Amino acid sequence: MGIAIVGLSTLPEVRQGDELAALIRNAATAEGHNIDAATIVVIAQKIISKSEGATQDLRQVEPSALARTWAKASGKDPRLIEVALQQSRRIVKMDRGVLIAETHHGFVTANAGVDQSNVPGAEIVTLLPQDPDASADRLRAQLNAGAVIISDTFGRPWREGLVNVAIGASGLSPLEDHRGRHDHTGKPLNSTIVATADEIAAAAGLAMRKSDRIPVALLTGITWTPSKSKASALIRNPSHDLFR
Amino acid sequence: MGIAIVGLSTLPEVRQGDELAALIRNAATAEGHNIDAATIVVIAQKIISKSEGATQDLRQVEPSALARTWAKASGKDPRLIEVALQQSRRIVKMDRGVLIAETHHGFVTANAGVDQSNVPGAEIVTLLPQDPDASADRLRAQLNAGAVIISDTFGRPWREGLVNVAIGASGLSPLEDHRGRHDHTGKPLNSTIVATADEIAAAAGLAMRKSDRIPVALLTGITWTPSKSKASALIRNPSHDLFR
Repeated sequence: MGIAIVGLSTLPEVRQGDELAALIRNAATAEGHNIDAATIVVIAQKIISKSEGATQDLRQVEPSALARTWAKASGKDPRLIEVALQQSRRIVKMDRGVLIAETHHGFVTANAGVDQSNVPGAEIVTLLPQDPDASADRLRAQLNAGAVIISDTFGRPWREGLVNVAIGASGLSPLEDHRGRHDHTGKPLNSTIVATADEIAAAAGLAMRKSDRIPVALLTGITWTPSKSKASALIRNPSHDLFR
Repeated sequence: MGIAIVGLSTLPEVRQGDELAALIRNAATAEGHNIDAATIVVIAQKIISKSEGATQDLRQVEPSALARTWAKASGKDPRLIEVALQQSRRIVKMDRGVLIAETHHGFVTANAGVDQSNVPGAEIVTLLPQDPDASADRLRAQLNAGAVIISDTFGRPWREGLVNVAIGASGLSPLEDHRGRHDHTGKPLNSTIVATADEIAAAAGLAMRKSDRIPVALLTGITWTPSKSKASALIRNPSHDLFR
């Protein structure tokens, strides 16, 4: 009883076309862990993107004037900025060396999720997966897992530091609505919709240190609400977002 | 190996002046758990506030004109809004029924952290603890724990749902700077300062369901960086915050 989190550290370097479910299952078995209907598997976006070929060779990128200007101002590679602009549907902020963008999915994150770290060969960047919810669905079926979450580390306003959040989900409700319930004194709980999928991603983040090459965590002992709703439900409707 | 999280469910209702460390230690013992230098204890803000008397009886509150007007527009109790205004040093947003404020500590949260749920007697609200970092220091010493985090559930821009975050910390570095390290391909990791204390709070949140009356979680198996820095380090310096 209680919640247990283990990271998987024996996955090989993932390449395009690799059967990711098989690599994860093999690593779990080699490390003495089981994946079943009681297991939530959290997978770092980076290896999903690599296996799906959601990458870009910077040598094939021709930066626009905007990308070149911004890259100069921020000390970044103009080709990476160009890829980030191509992944964006809205620029949230471009100031003091930081480019915050809303991706084509609706996620708000630095450089639209384009990332250079942990990709062998300095000229390749990863993009966010094209449809992380669909990737989560597929991997959950292949792994026979209870739920799958695809995670990435995002910054946030007001608070320092990155936290691991869910960008794809399958098998669980990413948001749990406690509003209909009552607290133990009998009063209704107000506006307590909990972003369970983000809390699960953050918990997994504790076991998935980037520099330790642990791109997958297995979580057991968590009670969740089975659901077909997706991590895209975590994206706040712009018309309801007081912060835009 | 692995991370383990257990919630404590046998704490009594906490009242002002209660020796919280003793209540937590007794509950842990009764539930078969140990608290030692390898344990991170996450404690919900609500019971800290109750034990410290950081509460307000609404019957003694005279709402201002602003509080009355906003309460009417948002369907809230004008006295609760008055207390929230008194806890604020800046109003971030007051729109569409939601009051987002920066507390006197610098935290940005709904109603400045003033909360009516889980307080026996409908006329009492809890405030955030006056100095959550100091409370965490005191409880860590009393519990002989490796680290203590005081948590509350906060909303955030762009993403739906609340997540448990750290508002007080003792014994660990709330932010871990991976910038000086290299990923496994040898490239330096850029801007990967991880908000470890928030990830720990979120992980604990999975075991601390409000309606289940589990205000404390014990976490083991987490590697952390011992530090005297405080959860206040998680508050982004306004002059560096692109989102203001």
